[in-house]
This record gives sequence, C-alpha cells and structure tokens, in this order.
Amino acid sequence: MRETLHELEGTARERLDPDVWHYIARGAGDDQSAREAEPAWNLWRLRPRVLRDVSSVHTSCAVFGDWESPIGVAPTAYHRLVHPEGEAATARGAAASGAPFVLSSRSTVPLEQVAEQLGARPWWFQVYLMRERGVSDALALRAAAAGATALVLTGDTPYLGYRPTAGRARPVPLDDELALIGVRQHLPTDVQDPWSLIDQTPRQTLADIERLADLTGLPVIVKGVLRGDDALACVQAGAAGVWVSSHGGRQLDGAVPTAYALAEVVDAVGDRTTVLADGGVRCGRDALVAQALGASAVFVGRPAVWALAAGGAEGVAQLLTGLREELGHLMGLAGATGLEQLDPSLVTRVPLRFDPR
Amino acid sequence: MRETLHELEGTARERLDPDVWHYIARGAGDDQSAREAEPAWNLWRLRPRVLRDVSSVHTSCAVFGDWESPIGVAPTAYHRLVHPEGEAATARGAAASGAPFVLSSRSTVPLEQVAEQLGARPWWFQVYLMRERGVSDALALRAAAAGATALVLTGDTPYLGYRPTAGRARPVPLDDELALIGVRQHLPTDVQDPWSLIDQTPRQTLADIERLADLTGLPVIVKGVLRGDDALACVQAGAAGVWVSSHGGRQLDGAVPTAYALAEVVDAVGDRTTVLADGGVRCGRDALVAQALGASAVFVGRPAVWALAAGGAEGVAQLLTGLREELGHLMGLAGATGLEQLDPSLVTRVPLRFDPR
Amino acid sequence: MRETLHELEGTARERLDPDVWHYIARGAGDDQSAREAEPAWNLWRLRPRVLRDVSSVHTSCAVFGDWESPIGVAPTAYHRLVHPEGEAATARGAAASGAPFVLSSRSTVPLEQVAEQLGARPWWFQVYLMRERGVSDALALRAAAAGATALVLTGDTPYLGYRPTAGRARPVPLDDELALIGVRQHLPTDVQDPWSLIDQTPRQTLADIERLADLTGLPVIVKGVLRGDDALACVQAGAAGVWVSSHGGRQLDGAVPTAYALAEVVDAVGDRTTVLADGGVRCGRDALVAQALGASAVFVGRPAVWALAAGGAEGVAQLLTGLREELGHLMGLAGATGLEQLDPSLVTRVPLRFDPR
Amino acid sequence: MRETLHELEGTARERLDPDVWHYIARGAGDDQSAREAEPAWNLWRLRPRVLRDVSSVHTSCAVFGDWESPIGVAPTAYHRLVHPEGEAATARGAAASGAPFVLSSRSTVPLEQVAEQLGARPWWFQVYLMRERGVSDALALRAAAAGATALVLTGDTPYLGYRPTAGRARPVPLDDELALIGVRQHLPTDVQDPWSLIDQTPRQTLADIERLADLTGLPVIVKGVLRGDDALACVQAGAAGVWVSSHGGRQLDGAVPTAYALAEVVDAVGDRTTVLADGGVRCGRDALVAQALGASAVFVGRPAVWALAAGGAEGVAQLLTGLREELGHLMGLAGATGLEQLDPSLVTRVPLRFDPR
Ligand SMILES: Cc1cc2nc3c(=O)[nH]c(=O)nc-3n(C[C@H](O)[C@H](O)[C@H](O)COP(=O)(O)O)c2cc1C
Ligand SMILES: Cc1cc2nc3c(=O)[nH]c(=O)nc-3n(C[C@H](O)[C@H](O)[C@H](O)COP(=O)(O)O)c2cc1C
Ligand SMILES: Cc1cc2nc3c(=O)[nH]c(=O)nc-3n(C[C@H](O)[C@H](O)[C@H](O)COP(=O)(O)O)c2cc1C
Ligand SMILES: Cc1cc2nc3c(=O)[nH]c(=O)nc-3n(C[C@H](O)[C@H](O)[C@H](O)COP(=O)(O)O)c2cc1C
Repeated sequence: MRETLHELEGTARERLDPDVWHYIARGAGDDQSAREAEPAWNLWRLRPRVLRDVSSVHTSCAVFGDWESPIGVAPTAYHRLVHPEGEAATARGAAASGAPFVLSSRSTVPLEQVAEQLGARPWWFQVYLMRERGVSDALALRAAAAGATALVLTGDTPYLGYRPTAGRARPVPLDDELALIGVRQHLPTDVQDPWSLIDQTPRQTLADIERLADLTGLPVIVKGVLRGDDALACVQAGAAGVWVSSHGGRQLDGAVPTAYALAEVVDAVGDRTTVLADGGVRCGRDALVAQALGASAVFVGRPAVWALAAGGAEGVAQLLTGLREELGHLMGLAGATGLEQLDPSLVTRVPLRFDPR
Repeated sequence: MRETLHELEGTARERLDPDVWHYIARGAGDDQSAREAEPAWNLWRLRPRVLRDVSSVHTSCAVFGDWESPIGVAPTAYHRLVHPEGEAATARGAAASGAPFVLSSRSTVPLEQVAEQLGARPWWFQVYLMRERGVSDALALRAAAAGATALVLTGDTPYLGYRPTAGRARPVPLDDELALIGVRQHLPTDVQDPWSLIDQTPRQTLADIERLADLTGLPVIVKGVLRGDDALACVQAGAAGVWVSSHGGRQLDGAVPTAYALAEVVDAVGDRTTVLADGGVRCGRDALVAQALGASAVFVGRPAVWALAAGGAEGVAQLLTGLREELGHLMGLAGATGLEQLDPSLVTRVPLRFDPR
Repeated sequence: MRETLHELEGTARERLDPDVWHYIARGAGDDQSAREAEPAWNLWRLRPRVLRDVSSVHTSCAVFGDWESPIGVAPTAYHRLVHPEGEAATARGAAASGAPFVLSSRSTVPLEQVAEQLGARPWWFQVYLMRERGVSDALALRAAAAGATALVLTGDTPYLGYRPTAGRARPVPLDDELALIGVRQHLPTDVQDPWSLIDQTPRQTLADIERLADLTGLPVIVKGVLRGDDALACVQAGAAGVWVSSHGGRQLDGAVPTAYALAEVVDAVGDRTTVLADGGVRCGRDALVAQALGASAVFVGRPAVWALAAGGAEGVAQLLTGLREELGHLMGLAGATGLEQLDPSLVTRVPLRFDPR
Repeated sequence: MRETLHELEGTARERLDPDVWHYIARGAGDDQSAREAEPAWNLWRLRPRVLRDVSSVHTSCAVFGDWESPIGVAPTAYHRLVHPEGEAATARGAAASGAPFVLSSRSTVPLEQVAEQLGARPWWFQVYLMRERGVSDALALRAAAAGATALVLTGDTPYLGYRPTAGRARPVPLDDELALIGVRQHLPTDVQDPWSLIDQTPRQTLADIERLADLTGLPVIVKGVLRGDDALACVQAGAAGVWVSSHGGRQLDGAVPTAYALAEVVDAVGDRTTVLADGGVRCGRDALVAQALGASAVFVGRPAVWALAAGGAEGVAQLLTGLREELGHLMGLAGATGLEQLDPSLVTRVPLRFDPR
C-alpha cells in the first residue's frame, strides 16, 4: 500500500491547485516532524510467529463504536477544497469500508449533513476550543445530537504552528463563505472579523476536558498527546482516551515522532485508557506496528485527503479498504488472527536505517 | 566472494527473461526485508585471534548428514525456469562441493530423479503444507523413501506474501505442466483448479511438526523462525531444528533481519537444538558471522539460482566451493581451525554503517 | 528562522569579499566541529504538553542584567570588516530587541563608543588574556568603567586553532590600524610587532578567573567549557558562570558539540552557577532545546555577523527579534509560558538522523 | 594534516605505476576494514580543558627507545617499489623527525644498511615467521646485532589475506632479486622456489613470542592484536607489548576497527604492558584520540609510503614532523602539555556520523 499511497499522492498533487496542495502537504518550521513521521515507523521491525492457524483473520475492533477496521480517517479541515462533495464524500467512503471517521471542526459541510451519510454508524467529532467558547460548545452539542459517539479534543493547537512559507505568497485559497459554513449560524450577523471569534484559543486548559464531557455527555479523547506524564494528566482530568499525534507535523516542529512517543504513552496509561495514534501512517505495516505498541486504532490524515481529491467517496473507500486488507494480510503472516493478539513482543528496534528507494 | 556473487547476479539478470528475473529477485511489500538482509550481516565485526597454528583448517560438519561445508543451498522453487536440467543440476553442483542441498516442494524435476543425482549422499526435502494435506504427505513420504535425511517444514507461508508488482503485469512465466510435475500423480485426473489443492494452507499449526515426524520418521526442521520464544515453541512441539529465515524477504516484509534474529534464537534454544539460518548470505564472512552466532549451517537462496542460470551444475559447484574455501580462509585468519571453535566472542557490533561501494 | 538565517548567510556571502567571508565561515582543522554544531541540536526532539493556558508567553530573563530575550550576540572579532559602523551597529541592533550583547576584545570600535550606543542597558565584555597582561587588564577596567555588567573570559584560546587554509593564500584582509583601534593606546608607541604583545597568551590558568574578578569587581563567566569536571574547576576557581562553547569550531577541531556537552555541564554545575551556551544555534528551536537542557541564555556568533553585513543595526535587530519571537511561539506550542518552566523533560534523544533538505 | 595527507596520497597515486599503487592501497575482501579504519577514529570526540598553562607542550615519549614523537612509521614491505633509496630513505626521514621507525622483514634494503642510516638512534625490526624458521631467526638475530631495540612479531598473518583483485591481472610488479635482497644469503643457493621457504607460516603459535625473545634478548611486541583476551594471552606468553592493528585491512576483512578495539585492549592489559596502535591514522587528532585511549604510540603505514614516493627521505620527515607538530598543537588546545596527561576522559563517543566533504 505504501507504493499505492505515494501514487495517490502524486495524482492528488497533479490535480490540485498548487496553493491547496501546499496547504495539505506542508508542516510547520523546517518540516522536520512532517517529514520524519513516516520513516520513524521504520524504527521497528516485526517478529512474526510460524505455524499458527490463520485461516480466518479479522481486523474488527470496538473503540467508542464498532468498526471493521482499526485504521480510520483523522480530522482534517476543509474537504471542499479538494472535492465538491467535501466531508460528505469522505464520510461515505469511510463508512463503506467500516473504518472510523472523525469530522473536523473546520468542516466545509454542515455536520448534520455529514452525519446523515453515516446513518446509524458511529462517528466522532473533533473539537477546537475557539476564542468564543460558545461556538465550540454549540458545535459539540450539535455533534452529540447528530449521533457522534465521541469527541476528539485537539489539545496541541493553542494557535497555529508557524509555517515559514505561510507568510509569503501562499494563502489558503479558501473564501470565508466555505470556511464558515458550519459555524456561521453561531456568529453575530454583523461580525467584522469572524476569525477573532473562531480561531483557536490559547486559553485552553486540562479542565476543558471534563467541561466538554459534562456538557455533551460524550467521552472526550485528547488529541496531540506526546508524553507519558501528560497522558496521565489528561486521564486524571477526565479524558476517556488519548490520541498520540503531532498534528501531521503542523504544530510544534521537532516534536518527537509519534512512532516513538506511542510506546511511552502506552506505558504510562495503556492499562487504564484507550490510546490512539496518527502521523505518517502509510501502509498496513505501520498500522500493525502501532497496534503492537498498544494503539487501539490509528488514523490517516493526508492520505484520506489525497484519496478524496483523486477519487471522491469511492477513492476514500478504496484507500481504507486497501489498508484494512493489508493489515489483515500481514497479521496472518505474523501468525495473528485478531487485533487482541498483537502485543509489544511483535516488534523490536534494530540499528538499521531503511531508506525506501 | 561478495564481488563474484554480484557479478553472477549480473550475468543471471542478463540471461533470464525479465519476468523470471523479477520473480527471483523480488521481495514482498516494500522489499525492505529483501534489501536489508545482506547489509544486516555488516552489523557485526570480527574479533580474530593472533598466533594460532592454522596450518590445517577444515569446514566439515555433521548436521542431519555429513558435509564438507556448512554453506548449503536453500530450497527455492522452479529451477527449470532458469536452466533446462533444473533441480537435477543444482543437486549435482551441491554434491560436487560437499554442501547441504534442500529440495523445494515446488521442484520442477520429480524428487526421485533429483535424489538419483545425489547417490548415497544426504539431502533434505522442504515441505509446504498444502490445502490438500494428502499431497504434502505423499511428497514427504516419497522424499523419505528416496533417501532424504531431514524434512524442512516451511512455517512462514500460510499463504504467499503480497508482492506489490505481482498483481500487475508480472505473472511467473511458468506453465502448469512444469509447475505440477512433482505433484501431478497425487491430484485427481479431472481436477479443474489444481492450485486450490496444492497452494499453501493457512490451517497450519505447531502440531504439524510432530505429525510430519511421525509420518515419515525423519527429523523435522522448522523454517522461518525469527523469535526466541517461537523457536522454543517449535522445539517443544517436536522440531529437531529451527531455521532462522525471513524467506528471502518474500513473506512478511519488515520482519527483523535474520542477521539480527539469529542471536536471539540461539540464545533461546541453541543449547538444545540445531539452529540454521539464511537470508542475504553472500560471502564467507557472512557465513563466519552466522557460525559465530551459533548457526550450524547457513544457506543461500538466490545466489544458487543465479549460479544455476549462469553455469548449470558446474556453476553451482563453483559457487559453493568458492564460499566454502572463503570461509576456511577466513577461519584461519581469525585463528580457528574448525567450526566448533567459532563462538559469539568472535563477533561484536560496532556503531558504524558500511555501504559497499 | 532556520530558513531565514540561511538566506541571510547567502546574502552576506554574496556581499562580502571572499577572504572576509572565509574568515567568518571557516573552522579549524577539518571543519568538523564547525560543520556539525548545527545538526547536533537535532539530536534532540521535543516533548510538548497539551491543553495549557499559553495566552501570555514571555521570554524575559535575568542573567547578569535584565533582558527581553535569552538569545544574545556572542563576541566576534572585527565587525568593521563587514559593516562601516562595526560593533556600534551590532550593539544597537541587540539593544533594540532586548537581547544580550557581548563585545569582543577584538572590537574595531573603541569600547566606550560601543557602550554609548547601549545607554543604560547592560552589556558584557569578552576578555582575551594577552601576552602583555597589562593590555587585557586595561581593557577589562575600561569595560567596567563603561558599564559592562559581566566579563566573559575566553578560556579555549591559548593560541589560535590551526586553520588549514589559513597558511595559504587567505590572510584576513584587515590592516593593523583597524585591528588595533581598541588597544593602540596601551601599546608602547614605538612597538615593532604589536601582535607579540596582544596575541593570546598560552600562559593562562584558572587563577586568572579570580584575578580578573578582583581587578574589576565584575562577575567572570568562563567561555569555552566543554566538560563537567572542568566546569566545576572553573566554579571552584571563582567563575560566576560557564559558557559552553567550542568557539564556533575555530579552536580544537573534533571537540564534542555543545548541543551534546551542555547536558553534562549542567549536570555538574547547573545547580550552583549560571550556564550559557553557543555553537550552531540557528533557530528558536535550538534555543528552546538549550533552555530545556539548562542554559540560561544562548548566543549566536556567525548569524549576527551575517545580519550586520546584510542589514546593519536594523538587520541585527530583525535577526534577534525574529529568534526571540520564534522561541516564544514554540514555547506556547510546547505548553510553557516562561523560560523557568523549561526543563530537561521537554527533550529526548531519538535514534533518527535528520538531514534538512 | 588530514587534508595534506590526502594530497600526498594523490601525488603518490599519480607518480606510481598503477599496479604498485594498487598493491599499496588495497585491502582484503571487500576492502571494508581498509576503508573504515580512518572514519572509525571519528567515533570519538574530544573533551578539552580551558585555562591551562600550555606555554610549553612536548610530545616526547619513551617506548623501547626515546623519541620526540609518538607517531611512527609502521612496517611496510618493499619500499624500493616507490623510491630508489627504499627503506634507507624512510629510516632517515623518521630519524630526522625523532619518530619511531619499524623496518619490515620484507625490506628491499639489507637491514644493516638501513641501521647505518639511523646511527645510534633506536629502531625496531618487524618479524614474519617464515615457513623455514631458520630464515626468520637469522633476520631477527641480524637485527639485534645491528642495534634494533625491539622486535615486532606480526601475528595476524599465517598467510596473506585474500585480495579479490590479486588473482586477476594485478601482480605486484616486483622481481625476486629485489624482494629477496634481505634474505638471499639465508637460502640454499640452488633453491627453486624461494617463496616456499620464506612465505609466512601458518604454524605460528603464542610460544613463538618467548622463543624469539630468548633467541635475541630483545623485547617482543605482538602486532595484530584486536581483542582484550587475546592481548592477555600474548602478555602471558611473554609479550613485552601489544600492537592493535588490522594490518591496514589487508588480512581479515571485516575485523573490528582499531579505533574501536583499542579501548578494549587497553582495558584488558593497559596496566601491565605497552599498547601500540595503527590503522587509518591520518592526522594529529587521530593520534590524540589513540593516546587518550591508552596507546603509547601510533603508527602510519600507507602515509609513510606516499610520502616516500612523493618526496623521499625529506618527504617522510615532513610528514612525520607535521603530524608531531599537529599533535602538540592540539594537545595545547586541549589543555595538556605532555602525553602523560592524556587519559580516556579526553574522549567521548557521540551518536553523530561525520562524513568529510
Ligand atoms: C490539511 C490538514 C488539515 C488538518 N486539519 C486538522 C483539524 O482540523 N483538526 C485536527 O485536530 N487536526 C487536523 N489535522 C491533523 C490530522 O488530524 C492528523 O493529526 C495528521 O494529519 C496525521 O498525520 P498524517 O497526515 O501524516 O497522516 C490536519 C492535517 C492536515 C494535513
Ligand atoms: C525464487 C525463490 C523461490 C523460493 N522458493 C522457496 C520454496 O519453495 N520453499 C521455501 O521454503 N523457501 C523458498 N524460498 C526462500 C529460500 O528458501 C530462502 O529462505 C531465501 O531465498 C534466502 O534468502 P537469499 O535469497 O537472500 O539467500 C525461495 C526464495 C526465492 C528467492
Ligand atoms: C568570525 C568569528 C570571530 C570570533 N571572534 C571571537 C572573539 O573575538 N572572542 C571570542 O571569545 N569568540 C569569538 N568567536 C566565537 C564566538 O564567540 C562563538 O563562540 C561562536 O561563533 C558560536 O558559534 P556560531 O558561529 O555557530 O554561532 C568568533 C567566532 C567567529 C565566527
Ligand atoms: C603496502 C603495505 C605493506 C605492508 N607490509 C607489512 C609488513 O611487511 N609487515 C607488517 O607487519 N605489516 C605490514 N603492513 C601493515 C602495516 O604495518 C600497518 O599495520 C598498516 O599499514 C596500518 O594502516 P594504515 O596503512 O591505514 O596506516 C603493510 C601495509 C601496507 C599498506
């Protein structure tokens, strides 16, 4: 799948406006975290077992909902930048392959319309705490009402990470009409600068976890966790799960790769909470490693956007189905028939660097 | 020899149909395990002794048979793809240099004809557990009858590892007539899809070890072992030996290199069973390292096929003789006169990467 | 900022006489320490915290004076080589951004004139122990009189580190008139070879620390420290601070990178003295890492010279303000609001090499 | 000096017959040990001290003789291949710079003539145990009589290491007249194949150490030691010193680099015997590292041959003087005034790879 994904990336790149492409691809700072996320999974090698009956392998799991796959879609902003149907198509694609779907606060399709595509299936809603708290609260309540089974509270974005080229000739080619489609109803009609209300707030604290859970009655997963002690702090503050992420390398550049931080976080809180992960996951093997290290599910950010750009709902479904099937294929070769059999003994670190051709 | 082998590789590549070449060369997934197998032996450096009397160095060993060399031919499929005499020639070449020879279940020459070439010499037969067990059992019994001194049960292949390009325009250019030559007699004459009977079965278990040993009376070596605990499980299930292998990188891509896993396996079971190894062995030095780490014998897969393609039985004999002589030469320089003197103190890992020019 | 700095480097390179450029850029020996100083900071990755209130982040600090930024200007020689206003402009630029400024003993503007630019602000003076001690003492006393708040005693330069190309056709294109501007008044009027008096002396000892402190009444920071036991020796000899530096790779080539030595020095003396650092600091992230490891302030050498060459006082101010702002930006993303919150738990080493594009 | 040496290498390469060049440059096997010897010294970084009085630095040492430098000439064969005066010139060059000189058993100038050049100065003679022991014994006795102060018994050469290209069109362009100049007098006049008598013998043992010491009354240093336990065995068998060497990568390819093995050997026997080292030493820094790790002296093999080829006795003197001066220069920068002050605390290993430009 790695190869297929990189072809998909190429297709998307060709098809999209260069500024849109750049918005999706870029990381913060020197792009270090953005670029090393994927190779960091290669720190790990697999330790398969032989002669196990793997005539029936399944990849189903229960993580705030029941899924056929533990490889889902991470929340990413503004899908209508790359496809006219936007988040509606992405959601449909995810549903078709039984994969978890997380809708971003920055959806360009109103969340109720997205929820409709999913019918009775579970889905999650990602929350940005906005300067005007009323807006984020309203969104979270609408999501709960529309059937979201969990909230993903992004904790690594008190403000946007600095992106060197962002200040030059590379604006996101997105007009406010589209960008505000999901929140317009919560803004004063005469607002001059809506972004002063809906930008991320730096005033976020761990107390927001419980506040949000109490407000909506939904389990709250904190996204962006990269250290064991911090994971523990989140759990103690009421988190129902932690999501190991460096926001696709778009926030603190130089942050430790998730492929590396995951083990530490699982070590600290794995026995008492659900741990999720994303960042550079590009094939079934990366997912297998993450599962072995203790993640209950992993998520792809950019690949889902590439697939949406290249093939709409169908493209997303193909991507996620491909990843799920590859994971199952590899599980069998490793001697495992279900995710519950994957544990840290499946992986080891070797002092070898692997540079894909 | 490394240089000679890479020249041999070039000759074979030139001579063979590109699809055949590709079938031999390729690994699974991203080719990671296929490509890092060879450089992984370079993780180790040698610690020779000075001023030892090495006026007579021998490389003979007894491993389910007596051999003049501990560097043998790993089982590989379909030798008639590269040479008209196929496995008969390979076997003759191995015999000429006193090296262990393992015949694949996927031989394109009936096993009895191969055995004939070997006269009274020992040889081993590799077993794939097939969907129709009757066929694998029949082959194993024929091998025992034809004089095989051990069975090598390949445990890492519940099904073929996914090879990205395999699904595209790269079929193995092999007709069923040739492919089925060894098993045709065990199939119903009117069978529509013979592969549904003889493909590897995912229903394999550790219990198959003892079953096969009981059936044939031969010692059973499990091939594909990559972890210490799994080696122990095999031994407890009746294995007479374990063969550390990642199937030439053709099954679970990303599996730990054998040059790395070998030490762990020897640690776990080296005192109670025979440990063998293959994967990226390309010169006497790789063999020396493996011996030092505790392997009783090592095997070459692709190099034997290249040699067969480039020079028939003679080519195979030259390759194996060259490797054996190089091993002996290096043993003397290291201050050792027999394989039994090689122990882990001969090797050490250094934090240096070596990239051959 | 890394990118901006490397552009600045390019601009300076274009603008300057090649010999001047070479004087600034080069290191000693094989340039190893000069070249690996910057990438060595990449040994460290960041471990941010989520959901912290970072609505107000400040980078102010008190280190022998009060500053708005902990990223200052390291002492470098001969600024009039690159800009007509020389050290006066550099000092003004530093002051404008609230950053520490250290004036070199090899200033091409008399120190009193530099001090004038700084008004009531703190600044430090760098001392080279010269063959004729009277000259260094006189300079140190003049600096104290002119308002310097600390002395930086460079301890790594008993003589200049050998620079291979220095002996060939690459003299520093600097006439003695300029070079001696700050010291001429202390030399006998009829001196034949002034450098025999003002060159660094190899007769320096730890006792010079206290002697200098007693002479001037100023705190003495020792610059060039690279080992824990040596830092302790300096502190015991009366140092008020130690400055981890390898002199921009211009003295002992092959010396351990400061990004590596800093941790050891902080470990040895961090609880009882002020630790500073320089060497390859090229962006806010490098400064953040150094702060986390225990440095109270860090310094840029070459970048300040580039900025001076490219934009005079204004250029220097922009550089330092940019670095300060980037540091603050990253602190917020890491969940910290003040330098006092940065501790070693913010960083970790990962077995990944990062090669900027 | 590294740069200067590589220029010297270039000059020699240009000047010499390609076959002669190849004979000097090549290693055994894949050239791995030959090529990684030099970069392996870069595993180490230096930890200098500041503010030490280094007004007088000396590099003199006493190692089986008194020398002004601890960087000597390793024994290498056949100097008349590269210069008409051969070993006589090399010896004179070494003497001129006060450096240790070791004459090879394969000298192309009779040893007495070489000794003459050295007057009363100390020198050492390298012994190969030959198939006909009488010849090696005779040489050793002549060396003792001619004033050698120590014997260097090369223990890593029971026979020549295999050099892939050696078997092809690359004979050493040396006629027997020259090659046998030192031993002819000890051979039967009617000998058909003199090499059957004077080739290295694989029948060498540790007992040869004492035998040789008893025979000549000289201290015997064993050359080629690469492991601690083996060093101990040599010392227990009567060695007066051990010389850590991998024979310039010309014997067991893949042997651990000397820059790595040295620490282990010093650890094992450094308190009771003299430890020497060679292999890839190319500048004062490499020598400084070796001294810090516990070597009493280090030696250059190929560089001396390049210098001889490029500049005769004068060239050799310049090389050795340059190295000695560089070592002294670096010692001062590191805060040391004599070799006895160098200890392991001067070096540390860092996880950085350095690739010279
Ligand atoms: C274009 C883009 C937009 C994103 N938007 C959001 C967002 O709105 N909310 C959020 O929590 N994370 C957002 N992320 C981060 C993703 O959720 C995820 O952490 C990251 O993309 C995973 O890394 P990957 O792209 O390497 O798979 C975004 C990432 C990208 C690339
Ligand atoms: C073309 C090819 C066919 C193979 N066929 C078999 C097979 O039939 N049975 C088996 O157990 N292993 C098979 N293998 C794996 C080899 O036995 C062996 O594990 C591997 O080739 C060793 O790695 P090397 O090629 O780097 O030496 C095959 C390998 C190759 C390259
Ligand atoms: C051109 C140049 C001149 C320097 N002159 C001095 C000096 O006069 N006194 C001193 O203590 N250090 C001097 N240094 C060293 C700097 O103070 C500082 O340690 C070093 O430049 C930091 O590394 P960086 O250039 O990578 O930032 C000089 C460095 C350079 C590049
Ligand atoms: C051309 C050549 C000839 C050599 N001849 C001998 C020799 O006769 N006896 C010996 O003990 N070592 C011999 N050596 C090994 C050297 O003594 C020494 O160990 C080695 O050259 C050191 O490595 P360097 O060349 O990287 O400095 C030879 C090396 C070379 C390159």
